[in-house]
Amino acid sequence: MTTISSTQKDAVRMVLDAVKSSGRTSLTAPEGKLVCDAYGIPVPGEGVAKSAADAAGMAAKMGFPVVLKIVSPDILHKTEAGGVIVGVKSADDASKAYETILANAKKYKADARIEGVQVQQMIAGGVEVIVGAITDNSFGKLVAFGLGGVLVEVLKDVTFRLAPATKSDAMSMLTGIQAHEMLEGVRGSDPVNKEALSEVIVRVSQLVHDFPEISEMDLNPVFASKAGAVAADVRIVVDFAPKTPRYRPDEADVVKSMNRIMKPVSVAVIGASAEAGKIGNSVMKNLINGGYKGQIYPVHPKADEILGYKAYKSVKDIPGIVDVAVFAIPAPFVAGALIECGEKQIPGAVLIPSGFAETGNMAGQEEIQAIGRKYNVRLMGPNIYGFYYTPANLCATFCTAYDVKGKAALSSQSGGIGMAIIGFSRSAKMGVSAIVGLGNKSDIDEDDLLIFFEQDDNTQIIAQHCEDLKDGRAFAEVAKRVSRKKPVVMLKAGRTSAGAKAASSHTGALAGNDKIYEDVLAQSGVIRARSLRDLLEFARGIPALPTPRGENVVIITGAGGSGVLLSDACVDNNLKLMAMPADLDAAFRKFIPPFGAAGNPVDITGGEPPKTYQNTVKLGLEDPRIHALILGYWHTIVTPPMVFARLMVEVKNEMLAKGIEKPMVASLAGDVEVEEAAEYLYQNGIPAYAYSCEIPVAVLGAKYKWARGAGLL
Amino acid sequence: MTTISSTQKDAVRMVLDAVKSSGRTSLTAPEGKLVCDAYGIPVPGEGVAKSAADAAGMAAKMGFPVVLKIVSPDILHKTEAGGVIVGVKSADDASKAYETILANAKKYKADARIEGVQVQQMIAGGVEVIVGAITDNSFGKLVAFGLGGVLVEVLKDVTFRLAPATKSDAMSMLTGIQAHEMLEGVRGSDPVNKEALSEVIVRVSQLVHDFPEISEMDLNPVFASKAGAVAADVRIVVDFAPKTPRYRPDEADVVKSMNRIMKPVSVAVIGASAEAGKIGNSVMKNLINGGYKGQIYPVHPKADEILGYKAYKSVKDIPGIVDVAVFAIPAPFVAGALIECGEKQIPGAVLIPSGFAETGNMAGQEEIQAIGRKYNVRLMGPNIYGFYYTPANLCATFCTAYDVKGKAALSSQSGGIGMAIIGFSRSAKMGVSAIVGLGNKSDIDEDDLLIFFEQDDNTQIIAQHCEDLKDGRAFAEVAKRVSRKKPVVMLKAGRTSAGAKAASSHTGALAGNDKIYEDVLAQSGVIRARSLRDLLEFARGIPALPTPRGENVVIITGAGGSGVLLSDACVDNNLKLMAMPADLDAAFRKFIPPFGAAGNPVDITGGEPPKTYQNTVKLGLEDPRIHALILGYWHTIVTPPMVFARLMVEVKNEMLAKGIEKPMVASLAGDVEVEEAAEYLYQNGIPAYAYSCEIPVAVLGAKYKWARGAGLL
Repeated sequence: MTTISSTQKDAVRMVLDAVKSSGRTSLTAPEGKLVCDAYGIPVPGEGVAKSAADAAGMAAKMGFPVVLKIVSPDILHKTEAGGVIVGVKSADDASKAYETILANAKKYKADARIEGVQVQQMIAGGVEVIVGAITDNSFGKLVAFGLGGVLVEVLKDVTFRLAPATKSDAMSMLTGIQAHEMLEGVRGSDPVNKEALSEVIVRVSQLVHDFPEISEMDLNPVFASKAGAVAADVRIVVDFAPKTPRYRPDEADVVKSMNRIMKPVSVAVIGASAEAGKIGNSVMKNLINGGYKGQIYPVHPKADEILGYKAYKSVKDIPGIVDVAVFAIPAPFVAGALIECGEKQIPGAVLIPSGFAETGNMAGQEEIQAIGRKYNVRLMGPNIYGFYYTPANLCATFCTAYDVKGKAALSSQSGGIGMAIIGFSRSAKMGVSAIVGLGNKSDIDEDDLLIFFEQDDNTQIIAQHCEDLKDGRAFAEVAKRVSRKKPVVMLKAGRTSAGAKAASSHTGALAGNDKIYEDVLAQSGVIRARSLRDLLEFARGIPALPTPRGENVVIITGAGGSGVLLSDACVDNNLKLMAMPADLDAAFRKFIPPFGAAGNPVDITGGEPPKTYQNTVKLGLEDPRIHALILGYWHTIVTPPMVFARLMVEVKNEMLAKGIEKPMVASLAGDVEVEEAAEYLYQNGIPAYAYSCEIPVAVLGAKYKWARGAGLL
Repeated sequence: MTTISSTQKDAVRMVLDAVKSSGRTSLTAPEGKLVCDAYGIPVPGEGVAKSAADAAGMAAKMGFPVVLKIVSPDILHKTEAGGVIVGVKSADDASKAYETILANAKKYKADARIEGVQVQQMIAGGVEVIVGAITDNSFGKLVAFGLGGVLVEVLKDVTFRLAPATKSDAMSMLTGIQAHEMLEGVRGSDPVNKEALSEVIVRVSQLVHDFPEISEMDLNPVFASKAGAVAADVRIVVDFAPKTPRYRPDEADVVKSMNRIMKPVSVAVIGASAEAGKIGNSVMKNLINGGYKGQIYPVHPKADEILGYKAYKSVKDIPGIVDVAVFAIPAPFVAGALIECGEKQIPGAVLIPSGFAETGNMAGQEEIQAIGRKYNVRLMGPNIYGFYYTPANLCATFCTAYDVKGKAALSSQSGGIGMAIIGFSRSAKMGVSAIVGLGNKSDIDEDDLLIFFEQDDNTQIIAQHCEDLKDGRAFAEVAKRVSRKKPVVMLKAGRTSAGAKAASSHTGALAGNDKIYEDVLAQSGVIRARSLRDLLEFARGIPALPTPRGENVVIITGAGGSGVLLSDACVDNNLKLMAMPADLDAAFRKFIPPFGAAGNPVDITGGEPPKTYQNTVKLGLEDPRIHALILGYWHTIVTPPMVFARLMVEVKNEMLAKGIEKPMVASLAGDVEVEEAAEYLYQNGIPAYAYSCEIPVAVLGAKYKWARGAGLL
């Protein structure tokens, strides 16, 4: 742990105060050096020697080679005056160089005022890298690392972490760039000192964290070598304009409000209607038909009763406590009704209406945000479909009802994607605990949901679609904790940068918005889905699989062709095919035809009877050296699809009875009967896919990614 | 076009003869220079001047700066003798330098024998690149290009093309590397001379093509600058062992044989059986039940009749002509029966039996290959499921029959993948013209199929799964031609390199097997599928789409969220979102709500009636500046899925009647009813997918990739 003392901070504060009072927005090179010195970031040593002994001592301390230069207000052309000696390699030589320079200077200009001789460490060799920091609108302070030089500018091979970065964050950055091998020593050169280099990263990240007014920073280049890492050039940009920190309620308050909203004892429907086709009617029907057991209070200015429920003119007229109010009224009426909710002390408002920020009505959205804050009403939306919470049989939405209970909580920023979630879930028989629309995210956002689902025993995995994170830093901080307990999957849409951002530093220019999301999500243990289907398949598959206890994956396949594609998919998904131990290889060989290939994949060959699948899969589950199985099934008359599927579930359950549980996925190649077999396997805990070798392996890969991130592997 | 004269070739031949006769496997640096000189590959100029005027003339001719060095057997330490002058920048200076060197030499050693002064061009600056060539087992001679330097060794940023490469191949290599921006001039430097650099690539590729004994070649580095491209170092490795060229029948013969095999007038089934469960029984049943109208001749040693067909003891006993014999007998009996087929002059044998090379029985496979060659019988397999050719209602296979006719011809190296093709095709109602198993590929392989399907009017697209290409060069040559007429899609399995190959050159070491496939397939216009599902979806979707006439793609979406994901997918699939002209923007705006977003995507907003989809899509089809449409549908009560689907098909057909045809794909977000809508759309020529924004765009992207490769865009 890098500890920065108050003295160190004071030194930086002093420099920054000077910059501020002189009205500048960047530091001079000497100021940059002072800041680096204060935070223990190595820069080339330098000093002014007043004697030969002084020069020798200084040089020895800073390390060789050094350069010596005359310091005199009367000698402008130092080299011409013989006032510069480079490549001084020993204390003795430094001492001699000092004398030579003084003699030369006197010869050049006898009456020159001599202030001394500057001794400067000469840095070169090793690998040129860049360490920098930027301030992102959503994520705040980020530290950056990349290789220096023109090629990297072109390739944009750079990686980011939230600042302050831990030592382990920093170490992961060194392997997190494409050209990381450069640091291992290429063409026989020494590897760089990773300890020293990562320490520079940590200290830079601590510096920008401690001094938010440092908006951008570049150490470029940093010379990283076996000996250490030294920043040859320092550039620091500052911005003293005070930032308004985003309001975040206490986590305890979030949990309290969200629990009342998601598991309400009573729901008010503002704008409830008996007229079919109206949103307020759909909401009422979904609440009723969804099987919600709590109180339902329709609110309507005129009706006395709606769909058999007593109606109220205002939420304020409702006799009991109300936990959540679903809004099904036009935008212009929302603010008024929201004030009433506030006065009624309702903790949550589900704002279905559109007509706010998404249509350019910023003022309208700010108005309701202010009301929410004033009365402590949490706002979901506006511009959403509502939400589902299946453990409470709650469909607080105008969309179709959904009731397949399960352990996946999904959310979407967009209504269309929400509908796709519902359709896919129903079609794939994917049980969910919740589906939540976030829409304009005027208040409740992804991190509120993470905080709720973290402590929600009905949820085992959280899968979110988002287009932006209003407060990426808050999300990352929560996600980092939550993802260690429950997998968090995210589909981040809008990967194409909305145009180059103005940036005054090199690091800033390198920061493509999506690269930051990529790195920070990974740093936070979030599994990033690359496509909508991946988001949905991961949400479905990850909770179906037990957590693997190790990295050894084995493929058992009836089709050699599937084996090859499954192996490719393992590489793509960062799964490790176990190197088969000789005894295990022999054990597999006992079950397969002599021309079948053991090794990994275990190719049992086509045309084998059910017994061969049974024996080999059983062995794969029983041997403790194997941690996960990928099955490749080939449809034959000898082992028809459903025979295979039933047998695999039987083997799985037999092993489960013995306390053996390992993740297993399957790829089924065959005629259409394999679809039924895949569904049967999936419903029995073996994620299986027809006509695809890639998807089952991607699902297993996602489970592994989570397990690694959560420190379980 | 680079033309190499016989004189140039003779010069190289002379060098290689000398290398061969001295028993060496590589060329010396001077020999390498001679070879480069002969082929017009620029190397630093050099020569020995005998006078000051000579030196000045030489230097002026080769270009400045130059270095001058004394040439004397009596002066070993040239620098010490004052015999080297670097950085000579003009003819005048060269003349003076000559005199100075002579004077210095005489001063140094009065009696030294002086042979002259060497004048050498000094090369530096610009960008360091590598141009090289290797010999691949499957693809033969390949030319390589990459950036020089340690970083590129690490990043393996290199690209390959078949040699000889055309100028346009070579130009495509310059933009085909990741760091191609480096050649455009970075940090204010000049762009390199692409004309000169690509010419070096062309000439290297011509050289290794003309002289197959050059097995590897490195020009490393080549200094590429505004002025030109000069190879500073030349390394050439040779292998004089003669290669046996692979036998390839004439294309005309391939077409003749394949037409008889795929559209036979009569089929013999060797090993036909009346006993259910036997392969010979399944083949008979599939032929009969599949509806094949030609003659079926069961062959069986004892039976007189099988399933109502007269049986024969041997194919030789069959009275009429036989076009193809399907083998359903164990491996040991194949050779004997194959000889009989040869004697009967049957042009094709479909070898279902396993038990050959795939089980290690190489001798058995070589035996049947020899028989096939001797009698001119083309062999499909062995170790296959057989093949389907639907226009002839022909199911020459032991798998399930398949009869949905369509325009896609698929093939697989593996039986399992073949079954997946059948299952997917049936499930997705994908019509096919053919499904072919290639198995061990003892004879018929992917390029034979390309040659047949190229001229087969029943086929519009060819999609192949393969694990290796026995003769990558033959495939590439055929594919390059065929792909200009019909899309060729390939799923190349086994992307992970089977271990580092021994290679004695730098370029050789850079040649990861898969990178070669990647580049050569692209060079040949082949669309590479990344997964089994992609192969299948491309085979299904590409023929469903008309060919686009330009690059302008427009997204029209009811769900803003889908619009963002569809845009991401466009970037991923190299599709260009049209910059919306102001008048067109205004025209779209007329149809959408004021808060909807025109521009591209055109966001018509959720909750719009069918009319809005209709108007905007119609406009998109009618405006000639738009070339393709991507539709994003959001399931609402106002516009239910099937209403949307029927309307889109209606609009499409209305436009078609006016002669307007543009590719259109759709992404459907909604509840399960969208699945039916997607199917309806697909069956009516609009590839559509539920719960996915990625797949429809990938299909459109594949169509574009083909159109570009075929020169249609």
